[in-house]
Formats: sequence, C-alpha cells, structure tokens
Amino acid sequence: MTRIKIGQVGLGRLGKVHAQNIVNAIPNAELWAVASIVEEELAYAKNELGVPYCYQSYTEMINQNDLDAVVIASPSGFHTVQISQALEKGLHVFSEKPIGLEMKSIENVVQNIESSPDLVFQLGFMRRFDHSYQYAKSLIEAGTLGELTSIRCYGIDPHVGLNDFISFARNATSGGIFLDMSIHDIDLVRWFSGAEFKSVYALGNHIAAPQLSEYSELETGACLAQLSNDVVVYLLAGRNAMHGYHVETELIGTRGMIRIGNAPEKNLVTLYDENGVVRPTSHHFPERFREAFINEIQSFVNAIIKQTPSTVTGVDGMKSTEVAIAMQQSFDEKKVIYL
Amino acid sequence: MTRIKIGQVGLGRLGKVHAQNIVNAIPNAELWAVASIVEEELAYAKNELGVPYCYQSYTEMINQNDLDAVVIASPSGFHTVQISQALEKGLHVFSEKPIGLEMKSIENVVQNIESSPDLVFQLGFMRRFDHSYQYAKSLIEAGTLGELTSIRCYGIDPHVGLNDFISFARNATSGGIFLDMSIHDIDLVRWFSGAEFKSVYALGNHIAAPQLSEYSELETGACLAQLSNDVVVYLLAGRNAMHGYHVETELIGTRGMIRIGNAPEKNLVTLYDENGVVRPTSHHFPERFREAFINEIQSFVNAIIKQTPSTVTGVDGMKSTEVAIAMQQSFDEKKVIYL
Amino acid sequence: MTRIKIGQVGLGRLGKVHAQNIVNAIPNAELWAVASIVEEELAYAKNELGVPYCYQSYTEMINQNDLDAVVIASPSGFHTVQISQALEKGLHVFSEKPIGLEMKSIENVVQNIESSPDLVFQLGFMRRFDHSYQYAKSLIEAGTLGELTSIRCYGIDPHVGLNDFISFARNATSGGIFLDMSIHDIDLVRWFSGAEFKSVYALGNHIAAPQLSEYSELETGACLAQLSNDVVVYLLAGRNAMHGYHVETELIGTRGMIRIGNAPEKNLVTLYDENGVVRPTSHHFPERFREAFINEIQSFVNAIIKQTPSTVTGVDGMKSTEVAIAMQQSFDEKKVIYL
Amino acid sequence: MTRIKIGQVGLGRLGKVHAQNIVNAIPNAELWAVASIVEEELAYAKNELGVPYCYQSYTEMINQNDLDAVVIASPSGFHTVQISQALEKGLHVFSEKPIGLEMKSIENVVQNIESSPDLVFQLGFMRRFDHSYQYAKSLIEAGTLGELTSIRCYGIDPHVGLNDFISFARNATSGGIFLDMSIHDIDLVRWFSGAEFKSVYALGNHIAAPQLSEYSELETGACLAQLSNDVVVYLLAGRNAMHGYHVETELIGTRGMIRIGNAPEKNLVTLYDENGVVRPTSHHFPERFREAFINEIQSFVNAIIKQTPSTVTGVDGMKSTEVAIAMQQSFDEKKVIYL
Repeated sequence: MTRIKIGQVGLGRLGKVHAQNIVNAIPNAELWAVASIVEEELAYAKNELGVPYCYQSYTEMINQNDLDAVVIASPSGFHTVQISQALEKGLHVFSEKPIGLEMKSIENVVQNIESSPDLVFQLGFMRRFDHSYQYAKSLIEAGTLGELTSIRCYGIDPHVGLNDFISFARNATSGGIFLDMSIHDIDLVRWFSGAEFKSVYALGNHIAAPQLSEYSELETGACLAQLSNDVVVYLLAGRNAMHGYHVETELIGTRGMIRIGNAPEKNLVTLYDENGVVRPTSHHFPERFREAFINEIQSFVNAIIKQTPSTVTGVDGMKSTEVAIAMQQSFDEKKVIYL
Repeated sequence: MTRIKIGQVGLGRLGKVHAQNIVNAIPNAELWAVASIVEEELAYAKNELGVPYCYQSYTEMINQNDLDAVVIASPSGFHTVQISQALEKGLHVFSEKPIGLEMKSIENVVQNIESSPDLVFQLGFMRRFDHSYQYAKSLIEAGTLGELTSIRCYGIDPHVGLNDFISFARNATSGGIFLDMSIHDIDLVRWFSGAEFKSVYALGNHIAAPQLSEYSELETGACLAQLSNDVVVYLLAGRNAMHGYHVETELIGTRGMIRIGNAPEKNLVTLYDENGVVRPTSHHFPERFREAFINEIQSFVNAIIKQTPSTVTGVDGMKSTEVAIAMQQSFDEKKVIYL
Repeated sequence: MTRIKIGQVGLGRLGKVHAQNIVNAIPNAELWAVASIVEEELAYAKNELGVPYCYQSYTEMINQNDLDAVVIASPSGFHTVQISQALEKGLHVFSEKPIGLEMKSIENVVQNIESSPDLVFQLGFMRRFDHSYQYAKSLIEAGTLGELTSIRCYGIDPHVGLNDFISFARNATSGGIFLDMSIHDIDLVRWFSGAEFKSVYALGNHIAAPQLSEYSELETGACLAQLSNDVVVYLLAGRNAMHGYHVETELIGTRGMIRIGNAPEKNLVTLYDENGVVRPTSHHFPERFREAFINEIQSFVNAIIKQTPSTVTGVDGMKSTEVAIAMQQSFDEKKVIYL
Repeated sequence: MTRIKIGQVGLGRLGKVHAQNIVNAIPNAELWAVASIVEEELAYAKNELGVPYCYQSYTEMINQNDLDAVVIASPSGFHTVQISQALEKGLHVFSEKPIGLEMKSIENVVQNIESSPDLVFQLGFMRRFDHSYQYAKSLIEAGTLGELTSIRCYGIDPHVGLNDFISFARNATSGGIFLDMSIHDIDLVRWFSGAEFKSVYALGNHIAAPQLSEYSELETGACLAQLSNDVVVYLLAGRNAMHGYHVETELIGTRGMIRIGNAPEKNLVTLYDENGVVRPTSHHFPERFREAFINEIQSFVNAIIKQTPSTVTGVDGMKSTEVAIAMQQSFDEKKVIYL
C-alpha cells in the first residue's frame, strides 16, 4: 500500500485534530514530521502520536525530509509564504483557511498554485466534506430544489468560548468576525450556488459582549448580499450560541427548501425530561465536523495518490477572502459594497 | 339560534373543563343548571360561570328543570345510574368515561341507551375529537398506511401528579391502572383498527413509586395484546412522565407508520438553550386535549340539534371496559386472557 | 349574558373566517349585520350563518342598526374612512390590517382613534393571539432569552397560491410584497423587542415567478434592518413555499434562542413513509392561525365588555406601515433608508 | 506502529463491510488474508482490497499464515467451530453474531473462550459501538434517567429488503425473526439494564407478507418481557419499514426518558417540500451503523494491542441467544416462558 508521507506545521487546537486523524484514521498516509515553535506541541507529537521527525522550523522540515506533502495549520499570517515554499520544494499542500489575510499576497500564492498543476493544493473548507453538506449538494444537483432563490447561513460559536475570545481580542487583532467566521459560509454559498457575490451590506452589534466594542470586534455580524444570478443571501455570524455550535445553512429553491443543521443534533438521542423533549447538541467544531475533518484529509491524500484534481482550490480561497473583506468594509463604511 | 339547555353533574377538575367550555366556547348551548354535593363547586358555577340553577341533587336537577341534555362528570360509580335516570326523563346524555365499573350494570345501561334511539348518548372519549387523532384517522381511511399490522399506545401521566395519586391511593380504591388509564387507549385501538381484542397479557411494576405496592396499585402497567385481525397491540400506562403528559399512539401499516404525539409538543415553539434543542411539552390533559374537550361537547350538541347519531356509543364504553377488566385479570392471574 | 352586536363589512376569504368565528365560537358576541357589495357574500351570510340584517352599503349598516361594534374586512383602501365613520357613530372598531395605505390618511385615522378613548379600537395583527407567539412572548418577558440580539422573520405564502397571485398582479396593484406581507413581521418585531426600526435595506428577486417582473412585483423580498437598540433584524417574504404556509420567527438573545414555526407542523402527527420521517404542515393562513383568529375577536369583544384597553393599537398600525413603506423605498432606490 | 494481521472468513454483505473498514479506516490493522468458498469474493478481496493471501478454506488460512487474529463473518452455523479452531491456534477472535445456533455448542465455545483469557474474543454486537448508543449509556451511568422502569426496542428492516427475505425463506431456514433480529435488542436490554430476562411472551403476524406463513416465518414479531429487576421490556421486530431501517431503543427511568433513533435520520438535513417537513432516513444497516462497524473492529484491534479485556463477551452471546430461543418457544407454544 502506498503511504503518503506528510509533514505538518502547527499543532494548535485544529492542528491536533488533523495530526490525530492522519495517525488514527487514514491508513494510506503517515505523519512523518511536524514543525512547531511550541515545545509542548512537539512533545505531544513525539510521545502521543509517535511522529518520527520533529522540527522547530518549517523550512528545516521541508528541506530535510523526504516528504510527499505538507499540512499547514499555522497562524493565518504564515499561510501564503508556507504554501509557496512547499510548492517550490515540489510538495503537495493542504492549507487551513484562510488562504491569506490580504489580497495582494493571496493573488501571488494563487498564481504559484496554478503554476504547479501537478501538485495537489487543497484549502481547509472542511464543511464541503461533511456528509450532511454533501447530501444537500447531491439533492441540489439532482434538481430536488429546482433553481435556488435564497440562501441563509448561520455560523455561531458556542457561548462557552466567548470569554476566551474576549481575552484573545484584548491582546491581539483578529481579522474581524466576517474574515474569521463568515468565510466558511461564503465558501458554502459559492459552492452550492455556483455563482459569485455581487453586493454585500453588513451590520452588527455586541449586545451579548459589550466589552468587544473596545477592541473593535463584533459579537454578532450580519450581512445581506445578492449573487450574480440574483439569489438573495443572508449571513449571520455570532460568538454566543447558548446551545452549542450552531452552523446552519438554508437553501430555498423554486421547488423546495433544505436546512442543514437546523438543529445541530449531537446524535440520534432524544431526551424527554423536565425541560421538555430535548435533542442534545454538538458543542464545538471538532465534534460537529469530526468526520468532515477526516474526510478532507483523506480526500487530499487520495487526490495525491490517484493524481486527481483538488476539490477546494486556491481560487476558492481567494474569492471567499475577497467577499469577507468587502463585508468588513461595508460594516466599517456603513454602505452597500458592490464587488 | 337554537340553544341546547344543559344540566351538568359534577364540577371536579374535568367537570370544570366541560362547564367552562359550554359557557365560553359553544354558542349553541347554555349551561342552564348544575348539580354537585360540593358547596364550592356550586358557588363557582353561580359566580364565575353565571349558571342560573344550582342543585345539590342530580335527581332534583333533572326533575325540576326544562333541560334538553345532561353532562355527567360525577365519580365513575354513579355513571350507570345517572345515565339511566336521564334517559328515562327523555334527556340527551353526555357521560364521562368509564361508562361504568362492572360489566353487569354496564350491560343494563347499554340496553337502556339502545332502547332510546331518539336520544343522543355520547361517551367522553375525547381523544377521538383531537385534531391530530382525526387527521391520523383520515390518513388511515385514505389508505395511506395500507393495512394495519401493529399498534402501540402510551398513556403516561405527568410526574407532577404522582404524589397526589399516591395520596389518593392511600385512601381510596381506583379501578387500577388499566381501567383508569388504558381504557382511553383501548378505545383508540378499537376506533383505528375497527377490530376487537382477542387476547391480552399484562405486566407491571412500581419501581418509580414503591409505596404503591402497599395499595395494590401499579406505577407502570404494560400489555401485549392481539386483535381479531391478528394486529399486534402494545399498551403502556404510567404515572411518572418527567416531561409532562405523554399520550402517544403509533400505527404501523403495510405501507407506512404514523405516530401521534411522539413528542407532546406544547405548541410551535422550539427553544435552543443550554439543555440543547428543546420542544416544550403539554403538561396535563386539559392542556393537551383543550380543543378536543370543546369539540366533543360541540359534537354532542350538534348531534342533538341535527338529530344525527352519536359518534361514541354505549357499546364503545362497554367493550373498552371489558378489555380493561381482562387486562387487570391477566396481571392478577399472571396469564394470557382470551376474550 | 351580555352579547355584543357586531356589524361586519367584507366577506371575502378573511372576512368569512371572522364571520364564522363570531357565529360559531364566540358566545358573547353575535353577528347582527353584514355589509357587502357582493351578492353571494350577502346570501352566504343570510343562509349559512343566519345573519339577521344584510346591507349593500356600509354606511347604511352603521346608520340603521343598533350595533355595538364593527368588524372591517373590506379592501385595504377603505379602512381609514370606514374606521373614522364607525368611531363617529360611537362604535367599537376591529379593523383588518393594514390600517391604511399611505401615511397622511393613517395619521388622521390614528388621531380619530386617540380622540375616542372610550371606544375599543383593535387592528388585525392576529399573530399576537396565536398560542405559540404568546408563549414565546411570555418566555421573553420571563427573561429566558436574556437581552435580544437578533431577530429573523419569515413569511412565505404557499406555492399553491402563486398562480392566483400572478393573475391578481396582472390586473391590479398590490402594495408590494413588503406592505402586503412583511407588515405582519414588522409588527412582531416591534411587539417582541419593544423597540422601533432605525434603518432598513431591502433586496429581492422573482426567480420563482419571472412573470412578476412585468408587474413590478417580487416573489422574494428580503430586508436587513437594525432597531433603535441595535438589534439586528432579517425579514424574508416570499410567495412560493412548496411545503405550505411558512411563518417563522426567530429570536436570539444573550441567553438562548427561540424559533416559532421552525416547521409549521399541522398537528402532532408524524408520518414515516417512503419519503422519510415527515411532519405534515399547515397549508394556508386560516389553518395555521385558526385559533388566533378566534382569540383576536374574542379579545376584542372582551375588551368592549370589560372596558379594558386594546392590545393592538392604531399606532401599531401606523408604525408598521411606515417601516414597510421604507422597505419598498429602499428596494426601489437601492440604498439604506434611515427612519 | 504495530499492525495487527487479520485473516477474515466470509465476504458476504456484512463481511465486505468489515473487510473494507479494516483496509480503509484502521491504520493499526491490516487485512492479511481472507477465506471464502465464493470465487467472486476472493477476487474482490484480491483486486479491490489488495489482500495478499486468499484461501478457499478457513482451516488452511489459519494454518498457513502468521496471523494475529481472525474476523469471522461466515454463515451462523459455522461460528462455534471456527471460533474454537482459531482459539486453538492462539488467535484473537472477532465473530459476527449470533455466537451459535443452539445452546449446547454455544456453551462449549464459551468454555473455550473462557479457557483462553489471554486471547481477545469479541462478538459483533456493533450497536454498542454506535455514538448514539454510547451517549445513551453514558447518560444512564450518570444517573440522568434515575432507575430504569421500562425498555422498548424496535428493529425493523427496510421494506426494500422484504422480497429478498421472502425468496430466502422459500429456500432456506432462518433462525426465525427473534433469533435473527431481536437478538441485537436483547443484547441492548442486557447492556443498558445490567439485568437478565425473567420471562418472555411473544406474538406475531405476517399481515404485510402473507406468503411468509407458508415458510413458518413472521413479518412482525413482538414480545413482552420482564427483567429480574422487574423492568418491563417490549421488543418489536419487523421486516417492512417503508421509511428505511428502523432501529429504535427507548429507556424510561424514574427521572426521564431517552429514545435512540426515534427517527433514523440520515444526517442533519431537513427537506421542506410538497410532502411536508421531511427528515431523510438511513436506509439499511451499513448506513445506519457505518461508524459503529468501524469502531467495533477498532476496539477489537486496540484490545489486542493494549491487552485489555473484550467489551462484548462470549457470555453476552450465550445469554442473548438463550432469550431469543425462549421467545421463539413462547410464540410456538402460545404461553409465557420463564427463564
């Protein structure tokens, strides 16, 4: 059996998910090396996951090892550079989203990606690999919904993480709620509709976390948009879902409507207790998208082995970032932005 | 507009529901008189409902008033006698279930009912008048389920009433869980299937209320039965639903399955909170069957005005009691009873 | 028993609902007279409902009869004049929404209403009288949701009525989708939040009914708004729900989320068939809001008898119309409108 | 990384599921050899799964290969012999259920298993490894339900397989619906309750497939049972669920109720279409228990590597078979059987 040798950079919360999946769930890959500047992360990789080679430097890792591919799960600011470095070394690349933070460097890295058609590049929009989303996509492709008329996407992080985010925002600058969170939904809209965004108008508030106003952050961000084909789109991002991790997508078509994650049920259990009839919920992204994270890396590895094209391209990363930036601009300037 | 003059006996919990409905929701009826041995009940009728004539004696009420009909909501032990008295006076009769407590007097009263074909007699199986049950019946009649193969009926009283029942059981003798509670489900099985019970086998326990064993009462009673047409039936009665008032009926047919009250949702509200995704529930029978109680009396009044036959007959009362008694016997004697 | 004598003008689809409810479900009111220019409607009232007095002229009706109150269910253009006429005659007034079509005459009629504080005036925002909406309101008032942060309202008419609307639009001018349909949701937002609209931005399309573009009508209308207290609001109106009549309201607060009508379940029946697990749905507004229509007239009659203030005022009608007009303007002028 | 070398016998429908999982989803195992008398199955293993060693004979396979463990997915009649043979060769054993067909040989094989405490033996009750079932178990262990009072288990195969079963029954003898299907539910009852069956009473019919009566098979089999701790149990097995593969378990306790698979939702998609609000369903066991099948083999492999005890023992297989046989006897003899 061919086994793809992977080197991964970054072993934070999401990085750990990828590393564990490569080791425990993907027989035709192996986690051959990791790079991190965090001592504990390297110790974890070595001791818990049995990774043979551990580096403090990404460059060193890709120079010294006989790798087939890299998985980039480092902070967003490093993505474009690390992608380009890996491509130069002839390595296949899986990179977490966003592909980058500003358009100029993103355009450059997309050019690099397109100049290496023999190397697989895949961006980490894992929702596309979730069974529910794939089932929804198949219904749309089968014509079950007719033509799309309206899309609604909610991405609301669990309340339990709110204080952590407030602490983070006190000390650092995030890309803002639209670039951080809505970007996944922007990608879904493009994927489901096959169309591009034409205009965006964004609003927001921080009623649930007034402190955020000091750090120029929103707790709730909302956007009304229209696509090139006139479909109406509503995007809501938030940081305070009491019931867990609420990612929901609604697709209204001329012949029916679909909701994915209307309720983020944890499993098939229903509890009847003093609260009423209760469906327990997924509480965070690793739980909700557990299988999707496995599937996306498996898909990346299979694309390398079978030499098939990637399913989430650099252009997907560029386009979604462009829309997210326009949403932030709309909010900042209090006006409709046309793309 | 014709307005049917009603005299009602009994103004306990269920009696109050009927009295209020006659006054507030049924324009073509009026609550002309009430009879009760409880002083407060008569005061309530006079002051809150504006009932013109109040009696301590049922006999006096039906003798002295120019009534069209009676509503009997007195303790079960009085039903057969009061029904026969009213019929003798030429009054239409609506009686709460059960029609009686033992077969001999029930057979007599059914004979009296059948000897008065011009008088409307209706028994209080209100579930038949619930929108959900009527919708289910219409689906069955339309053939949506094909032929029935299996029926499951749950009737579980809310936990909040358990202590009251334990107190009641300490001081009095109920008919037992099957005669008290399963009788509604027995009627539903007969109504939905159009068939009669062939055999019953009953079990039970009082794990949730061990004190009940002292009073020879069950908290949970279960019965596996078979109908004349081979349909398999499972009946579960209980006194301890933590989530409210759980009345559920399942009908499996050769072409599909229906569940009525799978979750006893209070309304169309869904609450997403720290418990998960919650459907609040109906908490007691007046809430769950609020409309059904109005509809059954409206149906009774309309039958009188339009001279149409009753929809829930004395025979329905007799047959369901017969089955409930057999279930109790099966439990007592630990064997299958054939009817 | 006091019985309020009602005269009703208009017996179209909605008018019939009111007339039937007054006759069949509200014992302390009677439908004493009706006025209509449609012969069949008068015949219906006389023959089916037994209404004693029938007029072709509204003015004649309110002049010649000893009425207590009027119910106005005539075309929207007549509302303001008929309300003022009735108030002048000293009659209590229930009027269907909208209170009027343009702001000048609405302001006048609101002044007339406020000059008659002894007369009950109630506007037909029946959703406020629906059990589910009232339950949601009680949860909000109990603080279950904390402070509101975001509201979403959907009002989507059933597909089965789309062709009728297209025919109507061919021959007549509606007020547009926002004034026709969103007005109910605008009222709900004001009712639930206790706040007023600050800004609106509207979009739309007619992908599901391209013919509507010829008549300057939308099939889908969407609006992103913000309230005076910063709450974010999304309103979606449509004319093509394949699954029935979809009225849904979502309230997100700092401590939880509520959805009312997430799925417009017809009743408590669940059908398991070759399509999957199916909840049958309400198919039109008389079905979905059957009880609410009874409750709102009952509430109006009770307010008259008990001399209590109205629950849906002229100002509620004026404010909601003002917002709906601003939404249409936003759509026409493609810009954010500040109120 | 240690990789457990597995030899598998039987590559029918369920065998294929196991073989694919070992190859595609379990990095610390490899499918080293297979045995089958069906030529196509061996070709499939060789060509599609890349299995190195293929045998026509089970004995030959376990004699000639340096295996660590066997997976037995052969017809039920071979299980006891093949288990004992493998144990003799010092191999760890995973066997599909049932452990055997009659009590004598089962008792023998259980003795063999218990005489080899260093070898892992695991029986294929995969439901225990399903996330929903594991979550339910954790709730019970946490005391969320209080003490159990009543359990209900449904196992209804999809209608689409009914004709295949009829053909099968024409030519062969199954163990009957209780031994074939209810055995999974019997195991769940034992697992959840920690108690043993005390009495069983079974009924059945073949209304949905009258032909089955000729082959002494049931389409619907039902059983009312009581456990040693007085818990009431209802088991329903069927072969004709129109909506898919219906496996449901209900646990009622003194403090709440749980349903697992109340509706066998395929995923998080809800479809709103002309049928109503639809949850698409799982259509067969490989779909519903996809993850559970992976988890049970992963658990077996991990138990070998970590030298931990098995989670589903030979005794579990023996006890569940004993109850299933009693249910069949109860049906045949039309009486209550006490165990």
